[in-house]
Amino acid sequence: MTVRFKPADKQVEVAAGTLLSDAARQAGIEILMPCGGQGRCGRCAVIVEEGTVRRRSTQRISPKDVEAGYALACQTIVEEDVAVSIPPQEKIERRLKESKRAAKVELPFPYDLHDQPLRKYAITLKPPSLQDQTDDWSRLRRELARLYDLQDLQASLPVLRKLGPALREGEWTVTLVVNLDPAGFRKPEGTASLPSTVEGSPKGTPVLLDILPGEHLENLWAAAIDIGTTSNHVWLVDLISGKVMSQKADYNGQIARGEDVISRIIYASKGNGLQDLQGLVMETLNRLLERAARERGISTDQIYKAVVAGNSTMIHLFAGIPPKPIRLMPFITVINQLPPFPAREIGLGINPDGTVDCLPGIASYVGSDITAGVVSSQMCGMDDLSLFIDIGTNGEIVLGDCTWLISCACSAGPAFEGAGVVHGMRATAGAIEEVWINGGHGGRLEDYDVTYRVIGEEKPRGLCGSGLISLMAEMFAAGVMDKSGNIHLDLPTERVRKGEHGAEYVVAWADESATGEDIVITKVDIDNLMRAKAAIYAGFSILARSVGLSLDDVGQVLIGGAFGQYINVSNAVRIGLLPDKPFDSFSFLGNTSIRGAYMALISQDARRRVTEVGQMMTYLELSADNTFFDEFNAAMFLPHTDMSQFPSVAALLEGG
Amino acid sequence: MTVRFKPADKQVEVAAGTLLSDAARQAGIEILMPCGGQGRCGRCAVIVEEGTVRRRSTQRISPKDVEAGYALACQTIVEEDVAVSIPPQEKIERRLKESKRAAKVELPFPYDLHDQPLRKYAITLKPPSLQDQTDDWSRLRRELARLYDLQDLQASLPVLRKLGPALREGEWTVTLVVNLDPAGFRKPEGTASLPSTVEGSPKGTPVLLDILPGEHLENLWAAAIDIGTTSNHVWLVDLISGKVMSQKADYNGQIARGEDVISRIIYASKGNGLQDLQGLVMETLNRLLERAARERGISTDQIYKAVVAGNSTMIHLFAGIPPKPIRLMPFITVINQLPPFPAREIGLGINPDGTVDCLPGIASYVGSDITAGVVSSQMCGMDDLSLFIDIGTNGEIVLGDCTWLISCACSAGPAFEGAGVVHGMRATAGAIEEVWINGGHGGRLEDYDVTYRVIGEEKPRGLCGSGLISLMAEMFAAGVMDKSGNIHLDLPTERVRKGEHGAEYVVAWADESATGEDIVITKVDIDNLMRAKAAIYAGFSILARSVGLSLDDVGQVLIGGAFGQYINVSNAVRIGLLPDKPFDSFSFLGNTSIRGAYMALISQDARRRVTEVGQMMTYLELSADNTFFDEFNAAMFLPHTDMSQFPSVAALLEGG
Repeated sequence: MTVRFKPADKQVEVAAGTLLSDAARQAGIEILMPCGGQGRCGRCAVIVEEGTVRRRSTQRISPKDVEAGYALACQTIVEEDVAVSIPPQEKIERRLKESKRAAKVELPFPYDLHDQPLRKYAITLKPPSLQDQTDDWSRLRRELARLYDLQDLQASLPVLRKLGPALREGEWTVTLVVNLDPAGFRKPEGTASLPSTVEGSPKGTPVLLDILPGEHLENLWAAAIDIGTTSNHVWLVDLISGKVMSQKADYNGQIARGEDVISRIIYASKGNGLQDLQGLVMETLNRLLERAARERGISTDQIYKAVVAGNSTMIHLFAGIPPKPIRLMPFITVINQLPPFPAREIGLGINPDGTVDCLPGIASYVGSDITAGVVSSQMCGMDDLSLFIDIGTNGEIVLGDCTWLISCACSAGPAFEGAGVVHGMRATAGAIEEVWINGGHGGRLEDYDVTYRVIGEEKPRGLCGSGLISLMAEMFAAGVMDKSGNIHLDLPTERVRKGEHGAEYVVAWADESATGEDIVITKVDIDNLMRAKAAIYAGFSILARSVGLSLDDVGQVLIGGAFGQYINVSNAVRIGLLPDKPFDSFSFLGNTSIRGAYMALISQDARRRVTEVGQMMTYLELSADNTFFDEFNAAMFLPHTDMSQFPSVAALLEGG
Repeated sequence: MTVRFKPADKQVEVAAGTLLSDAARQAGIEILMPCGGQGRCGRCAVIVEEGTVRRRSTQRISPKDVEAGYALACQTIVEEDVAVSIPPQEKIERRLKESKRAAKVELPFPYDLHDQPLRKYAITLKPPSLQDQTDDWSRLRRELARLYDLQDLQASLPVLRKLGPALREGEWTVTLVVNLDPAGFRKPEGTASLPSTVEGSPKGTPVLLDILPGEHLENLWAAAIDIGTTSNHVWLVDLISGKVMSQKADYNGQIARGEDVISRIIYASKGNGLQDLQGLVMETLNRLLERAARERGISTDQIYKAVVAGNSTMIHLFAGIPPKPIRLMPFITVINQLPPFPAREIGLGINPDGTVDCLPGIASYVGSDITAGVVSSQMCGMDDLSLFIDIGTNGEIVLGDCTWLISCACSAGPAFEGAGVVHGMRATAGAIEEVWINGGHGGRLEDYDVTYRVIGEEKPRGLCGSGLISLMAEMFAAGVMDKSGNIHLDLPTERVRKGEHGAEYVVAWADESATGEDIVITKVDIDNLMRAKAAIYAGFSILARSVGLSLDDVGQVLIGGAFGQYINVSNAVRIGLLPDKPFDSFSFLGNTSIRGAYMALISQDARRRVTEVGQMMTYLELSADNTFFDEFNAAMFLPHTDMSQFPSVAALLEGG
């Protein structure tokens, strides 16, 4: 069958029975599938202009549109020659977080090059002679043992292939790059640490990563990497000074195949999905590594190690391990602690023999972004009981102190990243990020009119997560909606009205918006956001109760994740997303995951602590907790059914 | 430039300055280059029919032939469009040694599956639940530790990728293939062995090689491999019984790029030569593995280990390590003991995660074919002082007993394999393998006429190694030539005559030969053979003297190598190639290299002994020995200047 695509005017031959989305990929045409090809989001709609097709599902397309030829690419089967028109695909607006937002990273502790296991040695060997015909490799090892007491050095075939030529080109002077302890488990002498036999740890055998002719001791580079479901971060680190020399970030290229981890897992289990997703994240990371290297004037081949943190699904996809069991009852990972491996095995764009160390996670939904985050949050260094929250595409929560840690994951869904909300969008240019409504009990002008702030000071195009929180808090405080999230349709303003999806509130009129349509929030949107915040708050409550404590006992609330940086705390408390605590109990830590990866990169002690945190941490599976549904329902109000947990909000409402 | 090849009628575009041999390769046309492209052998001559070329050398081509368009492909540079005619290339006649000659291999010792480190375990795991969310990998390791006390199991990413699907497809019953000790260094309990800290040994960590859904304990396959310069051997071994189930052999595909190791090293150092040679030997081995597997009705993916022996150059080329230093003063290898690696790293056609264990050699010209050979020759189990000889393309010699070993390599050259001899050829169909001449002091008919035996009972086409030894011994004994190798031209027979290359003796007349020309041996050939045998005998003498002994002290002469199988001992002694010992001192062991690889495959103890032999063995570099020239010159006679070393030959000559 021939499938012709417009307007690109590309055409491919496919077998009958092929999905339109597969045909498009074969033609090299990008069609966004935020739900991972499940036919649920409706974003992959195309117009079939010639020929007939079989539609497995037409969810999200009106019968009128189906009549007009609309079809979901991921649900539509080619049965004869067809011509298909692809509407313009939504472009992901790139926000250069690294330059605009990322603060310069300070060294988290005094740095000593010898606290991390990467070394460069420049050595000059006695050349071989007829009297000493020792082979090159033994000669090198002999000298390393003599000079540095370095025993049992290992090397892969690709490195051994460089050995002979390098020694002779350098006239028996070479620079060696060695990883003394690929997995970072060897305890430096005199360092105190929790007792542990680290499960899954390979022997701490030194490995030769590279051999260069001549002397090249001037630098030693490595990278910390954070693989988020939504965005990827790379920090290029100079191991001589320990400093972060470049920070790059971009959206994870996998977004086009699904917004959340579930969609990605579904996508990965189909055909070449896994290879496709692995390739996409590698493309993103390699582009970031390339840009960081170029910024410092080095080649990526000079980067000899990468420490990687990410949620368990991201780590599985990064390593090419089928993530399917993560999604299915009883929700387990294939592996929490990957062995270190050379970059060539997955095509990560550092030196091909450079060590890739994926930090250990502990469960399907508590990955190494969290173990790394706990270490970098320093929650173990505090006297108080701490609550650590990472709200990203999922919400992960850790409660504990130095002696114990308990964690859970809330399937909050990506509502706070703008998905599942009619005018939701990511926090990029054009997103409304904060909202103020006239009204409520504060004695202000009660016309329920609105002002807002837009990222990039452009015309608004939609609402991002912080905008949604702000909007809900203001609608509730101003009395636009009640504690169940019902919009009062009888208010004296045109902004409340009955729309296609039930009651809605107009945030921006068509003439002020960039899209030419009204920007609204609907009852359906509000229900989605309520479920998200209720899931998170239920997580807090259950974690605390499971160890016989209450949220009152929590002294510190540590908030990680990029999203956390932009939350207005009083708004988040007002809608019951965060517990009601004094303002100074909250710390906003930004991307704790990459910070943890960075610490593990520059310190063996921090590296070991990540593993120990993982071993110490108990994981509570909320879906196996029989109180979850009660707690969730109790939190499905603004801020909560139990107002005694939200005294400041109660005071605000009463004080009105 | 366009180069057109006839008669294949292929054509390629190349840059000006390209060698004709490279252009031919590019066109997919095979041109034999036994000297490795050095312009020395003349075998790659082609006819330039159109266009002019630049000839860097015309060695071996007469000026008349140059005028007629002849050129050496390896020495001729394309400077304009040319048309080239390729004469028919000599085909290597394949002799199916495995079926015709190889004897059934008996188990060398009582076999116990547990003496070797490959294991299969079929286990059933308790499925995960919401109460036990342990990840797949930890679940597997936990059960292996509990059932088999197997600690610290490692796995590569490719194997980890199979884990999740295999567990679920097998409904939590899986079969694991584990290498308990990839390098075979772990000492089984209660086994006595020489004390050793094996240099270069990786930690004996168990490695998971494969995971299969369900229970599959019925077989466990591995392979022993011998990579000779000339021929390659593969034995397919059933590790359940320990028996050799199939034997395959073929000429090393690298022969087309050079007959001896020196030519190969030269070829490897040019352009893509190394990759080309690695690919050629891999093609040969993979074909043999495929044939052996097919014979037993299995897939090559079921072969989980290969133990490999070969000379140091062959092992370097097999692993893709540039072998250049082997050829240059002071003749050293890049590495004698390669770490074990997965087959996928070099493309060897067994299971891609199967372990490849290259046995350790000790020097550039004493490789693992010799260490393996010493172990399989059992020379360490004998009371007598033993001399071990492997005469192949090179001649390697080891002298010693259980407590010490000393070795050397003689650059005998490939004369005994038929190279460097006008009518020399390999021991294939049509080769004269034994010769009898009427004459000498024995009172027989003194007409100097000849009878001979031909391999395959065909018309003769040339002389193979054993035929050459036989011919020299007979010519000497019959008085056709003197002790210096000078042919007596005044004998009353037409068989001695003056030819193009000086004096020569006709073994077969044109009308009896398959080629239609006389088959002769010339003075130049005899000089080549004299140099080869003198180099070997000088090696014997120097080795013995270096440890204060003489050849009289040797009790056993152990002869390895395929060539050794066909030598007539009295002939070899008569020309002074082998020392003059009673007939029952000689043992002909056949291919000791693959037998050693096989023993190392089925027994950890034998594997460790190979390493220990390597560590124990002293290597004597003959080119650094200042008595070599004297000993060599003394041996440049038939059988030797010092007749007291050859009493039986002296008796024969006197008794005539």
